[in-house]
Amino acid sequence: MRTKGVLILIVALMLFGCNQDEIKENSKIRENNDMNLMPIPKEVNLTNNKFYINEDFKLSVDGKIGEMVTTNSTRFLRRLAGRTGLFLDQDFITKNSNDKSAELQILSKGLGKVKLNVDESYSLEVSEKGIQLSANNENGIIYGLETLLQLLNSDEEGYYFTSCKIEDEPRFPWRGLMIDVSRHCYPVNVIKRNIDAMLATKMNVLHLHLSEDQGFRVESKVYPKLHEMGSDGLYFTQNQIKEIIEYAKVRGIRVYPEFDMPSHSTAWFIGYPKLSSKDTVYSIERTWGIQNPAMNPASEYTYQFLDKFIGEMAQLFPDEYFHIGGDENNGIHWKDNKNIQKYMKENGIKDKHELQTKFNQRILKILTKYNKKMVGWDEILQPEMPNNIVIQSWRGKKAMIEAAKKGYTAILSNGYYIDLFWDTERHYLNDPVLENENLSPEVEKNILGGEVTSWAEFTTTENVDSRIWPRTAAIAERFWSPRDVKNVDDMYRRLEMVSFHLEELGLTHLTNREMGMRRLTNNENTNSLENLINVIESIEGYTRHKREGLKKYLQQSPLTRLIDISYSDAPVARKIRKATDEYLSGKNSALYFTDNSEEYLKYELKKLSENHKKLKPIIDNSPILKEIEQLSENVSIVAKIGLEAINSDKKYSKSQKEKLLKILEKAKEPIAEFENRIIPAVEKLIKNSVKE
Amino acid sequence: MRTKGVLILIVALMLFGCNQDEIKENSKIRENNDMNLMPIPKEVNLTNNKFYINEDFKLSVDGKIGEMVTTNSTRFLRRLAGRTGLFLDQDFITKNSNDKSAELQILSKGLGKVKLNVDESYSLEVSEKGIQLSANNENGIIYGLETLLQLLNSDEEGYYFTSCKIEDEPRFPWRGLMIDVSRHCYPVNVIKRNIDAMLATKMNVLHLHLSEDQGFRVESKVYPKLHEMGSDGLYFTQNQIKEIIEYAKVRGIRVYPEFDMPSHSTAWFIGYPKLSSKDTVYSIERTWGIQNPAMNPASEYTYQFLDKFIGEMAQLFPDEYFHIGGDENNGIHWKDNKNIQKYMKENGIKDKHELQTKFNQRILKILTKYNKKMVGWDEILQPEMPNNIVIQSWRGKKAMIEAAKKGYTAILSNGYYIDLFWDTERHYLNDPVLENENLSPEVEKNILGGEVTSWAEFTTTENVDSRIWPRTAAIAERFWSPRDVKNVDDMYRRLEMVSFHLEELGLTHLTNREMGMRRLTNNENTNSLENLINVIESIEGYTRHKREGLKKYLQQSPLTRLIDISYSDAPVARKIRKATDEYLSGKNSALYFTDNSEEYLKYELKKLSENHKKLKPIIDNSPILKEIEQLSENVSIVAKIGLEAINSDKKYSKSQKEKLLKILEKAKEPIAEFENRIIPAVEKLIKNSVKE
Repeated sequence: MRTKGVLILIVALMLFGCNQDEIKENSKIRENNDMNLMPIPKEVNLTNNKFYINEDFKLSVDGKIGEMVTTNSTRFLRRLAGRTGLFLDQDFITKNSNDKSAELQILSKGLGKVKLNVDESYSLEVSEKGIQLSANNENGIIYGLETLLQLLNSDEEGYYFTSCKIEDEPRFPWRGLMIDVSRHCYPVNVIKRNIDAMLATKMNVLHLHLSEDQGFRVESKVYPKLHEMGSDGLYFTQNQIKEIIEYAKVRGIRVYPEFDMPSHSTAWFIGYPKLSSKDTVYSIERTWGIQNPAMNPASEYTYQFLDKFIGEMAQLFPDEYFHIGGDENNGIHWKDNKNIQKYMKENGIKDKHELQTKFNQRILKILTKYNKKMVGWDEILQPEMPNNIVIQSWRGKKAMIEAAKKGYTAILSNGYYIDLFWDTERHYLNDPVLENENLSPEVEKNILGGEVTSWAEFTTTENVDSRIWPRTAAIAERFWSPRDVKNVDDMYRRLEMVSFHLEELGLTHLTNREMGMRRLTNNENTNSLENLINVIESIEGYTRHKREGLKKYLQQSPLTRLIDISYSDAPVARKIRKATDEYLSGKNSALYFTDNSEEYLKYELKKLSENHKKLKPIIDNSPILKEIEQLSENVSIVAKIGLEAINSDKKYSKSQKEKLLKILEKAKEPIAEFENRIIPAVEKLIKNSVKE
Repeated sequence: MRTKGVLILIVALMLFGCNQDEIKENSKIRENNDMNLMPIPKEVNLTNNKFYINEDFKLSVDGKIGEMVTTNSTRFLRRLAGRTGLFLDQDFITKNSNDKSAELQILSKGLGKVKLNVDESYSLEVSEKGIQLSANNENGIIYGLETLLQLLNSDEEGYYFTSCKIEDEPRFPWRGLMIDVSRHCYPVNVIKRNIDAMLATKMNVLHLHLSEDQGFRVESKVYPKLHEMGSDGLYFTQNQIKEIIEYAKVRGIRVYPEFDMPSHSTAWFIGYPKLSSKDTVYSIERTWGIQNPAMNPASEYTYQFLDKFIGEMAQLFPDEYFHIGGDENNGIHWKDNKNIQKYMKENGIKDKHELQTKFNQRILKILTKYNKKMVGWDEILQPEMPNNIVIQSWRGKKAMIEAAKKGYTAILSNGYYIDLFWDTERHYLNDPVLENENLSPEVEKNILGGEVTSWAEFTTTENVDSRIWPRTAAIAERFWSPRDVKNVDDMYRRLEMVSFHLEELGLTHLTNREMGMRRLTNNENTNSLENLINVIESIEGYTRHKREGLKKYLQQSPLTRLIDISYSDAPVARKIRKATDEYLSGKNSALYFTDNSEEYLKYELKKLSENHKKLKPIIDNSPILKEIEQLSENVSIVAKIGLEAINSDKKYSKSQKEKLLKILEKAKEPIAEFENRIIPAVEKLIKNSVKE
């Protein structure tokens, strides 16, 4: 599956550690938008030609053709027509859509399979004469179609596919996204559009986190009080779950459920308090953080209940994997329960960890009975657990590698927590298996891949897309592409195009930011707010939970403030930092900047230095923006300092320097949970100023 | 229901035929955004005070409280928190959420009902001390909550509700929107967000056009080949239909189905050719326009089939009305069928109209058996049809009034075809019953209201919202507000705010235009394309079907060109025309323009005159935009002519004038189905120039 192949990726090679001349060369590629593949395939040979398409363009299918190919080749045609405006004739592709004269010939040697370790490779050849796409399974075909769409380009003669030969297959077989639908719940269409985005980035596992202290999100016919009393009416019916699974299946994506136990389980206890470890009246938890409620591991009722419940869900979710959570049990309700304490003594269980292992072993039996394999967070890995469980590593990579060495299969999530507001770069360079880890092939094989985790304290239907995308596309490349694909600048360049193309699938990561800005300004001109948002970032981590002197976030708190539409990678700030490095080193790559880095810096810093003046009257009319007034002013002041440093030809006395650096130091203090991300650039400009 | 009340609407009165001073007065209101109600209530008294809200704001419910109030008052809180950023404490409102100290007191005297002629009135009083909302039914309460949200405002002290006393009830009991989900089909969430928008504009009937030549869109368990063979897999399951009906019900909205018969019915015949009048092999129709296939009215099989089918659908759709279409049967397949001709002779039926009436009478019996009342398009009104059918008038208002005089109930759709690309104004002023029609109260009562119709040849999931909204909000006001509410300028002013607030409900009418522009420019800067789109309009009517020398539109043709995101009311063009009128008449209302109309005109015309220069390189890089290159140039030329006319102090010789008018005349020719909508303004500027 993860054969080490020769990487003949011309463009990527040119970009790795390139010198000035090479960068100039590449800037042409950027202008042509020639090579926007993400994830980068295993092998790409550009063959220096173009396949032009016109309204007669047709596709033909041959071999073993099922719904995976028919649906996605129809979607391919619609998307191609949508981007080009060409009135392509074909309507809906069926398995009989076979035409030897068609421009795009698809050959699938096997029907699609949606399970772990299926062959997902494909071969794609675009020549002047036509396009050949073949694969051992439909799975490969649908990836090849996504790659082909990324090869679409245009010039004065019209639209064409860049000709090339591609041999591609993924590095890891488990390329997942976990969506927490429990802390906040989303409608079916939100899940569906994220599934489309997953296919577009060649991901193949959707992990639904379906129960939490704050909500139980799936209909249970066996125990209806779970969803009736534990969800505020916000849950997926079984029909909707089937709809999601079917939608994903056609897109080559496995869907498996997580029911977090024994902790993170308050929502179960509202309807079924007997399951819990503490005899009390439960209600849906509105606060965030680790809670005390936990299932009672010492009661047979618990196992009888879970047997029936898991039996029901095992049937609803056909995937062979089943996630039981297992994380963050603080043990408090166990400690307070006399029966549980008695049970522990009687069975020689010395602490909560052993007790949880006992619990997990019982659950494992149930899962096995229903032909499911157990997945759980780090905590389920205890000495007495058998080898056939999958560890989802969230607390650290080291533990995962230890697990793999002990023969456990594992997936990495540590480093892929996209609710932490990290830069894309940091996620991107987090490799499940670095070369210098020197794992044996057997051990490396135990590391199946990874999962991006989208936790939902601060996500809603409106902003969840922008929290997941586009950053997840970069992580998807980490899961798919060869290990040595890691040029960060090129990743950001391609990510911008991927992000743009995801819109076609209905993703709202870009549009809802614009909508949110209109709401914040009460429908005034949003230009100045956009200038601000382009250079500030949410503080990394979970700092939002600490609102000194302000009301804490609850489940129902509004997520419509500026921070809720902010970037993790403020795009203009990143370019300003990049341009500053180039400017100070005397390089002008023109990789990012139309003219040169100095001109770019002057332009952006001038605009920002004048921005607060424009934003101020809008803030005055919109109380919800009051909290960022000082930040806005701060950005303009810092930009002005940067601009002056350039305009004064970088000449400052030591005392001037110190004074300015002090101002910048002070400006680093977060305001309204935001950081001003041009400060590092301006600091460099000052520090590098010439002493007189 | 449509009692003529005293209209004490202060603001509206001030705007009716107001003089210059009054307009200046009103401009303050505009600046404060004080009065953005749409539809305008029957009676509004502004009481010159403000009710400020803070984080302790609570609402309390009392009386007969069902899901209509609990769901929508919870939604109210979330939307209020969302707009203000306030961390309101209340989570989910239940019927026990009763608290005498709460700031918003809601009293519902009856549970909600979702049927024709329910009492939808409400009383709302906002004073400095608190807010009282009461109604005879939950229906009124949920409308009062929408009105209250429209009263939200802010000043330097924070957010407040403008205090007032409102007594409100609708003019018409049937305020409908028909969505054609057959020519193109949309996912459930598209229907749901449109339902939310309907509630926000106080509409109460959703009419789903569920079958067509191009698709059969609902699952039938009795006749599964209908949806299996007639839909390309794009249909609503019965569970989804139930989900939609339940969603609408909670929002006070009736949902009733239309199954168009005997014509517009090709999709039925693919699975059940025996139903048809011609023995042939049918397939889903991909072209647009009137088709020949029709059900066989001379065969008992047809009535047996329809009896079972209608029986199934009558149960699925609980509303008391059932639409049978009945339009545009060209009679060709009837004429060609010997058995049908024989049947006509035998039964003394002289033409296709009489035959269709016979057919309708049989269907009427079936509907009656299942307790349904028949609704149909104009054509069903034939001499022998009974009085208890509802005529949906699409061909003209005159026929509707004739029908009403004959004792038929009727709803108006003629004039509300929003797929015709009309200006909002034209729809808005189309009144179902003008005062000068002098109908007797009995006859007037037969006119139940109207329905906006959204036909789907050129709509997709991406652009359907922008085709329906915001224009439908103006028609909704026509259906709800007193007849004499008809100030067009004020309607446009308020419509902009309504449009903005619809975004909060997930409507994509604004965001997808931005997305579409990014796609057209291949992710380049969209400013210049936006400048263009703001002054051009799709040609009115159905001209898109005439593509000389180009491929005709088919069901699968791309709807991603500029025209698919264009306006029916190009907003900047409208303001330019308005400013021109003011400038030429020497008035400067400052109602629309920050400075004055001359400054505004100079600013906009200058921008437009330079626009093509900016757009040209983008067009050069995006073949899909090629078709509007000439239009773009044309707009810049016309803007330049306008600008020069102002700058030259309006002095032109007769021959100069003639020459310029000739250029403008030529520029009127549509390009790529677009009209340049600043031409009328520039023409006036030239015509009004002073002769030397």
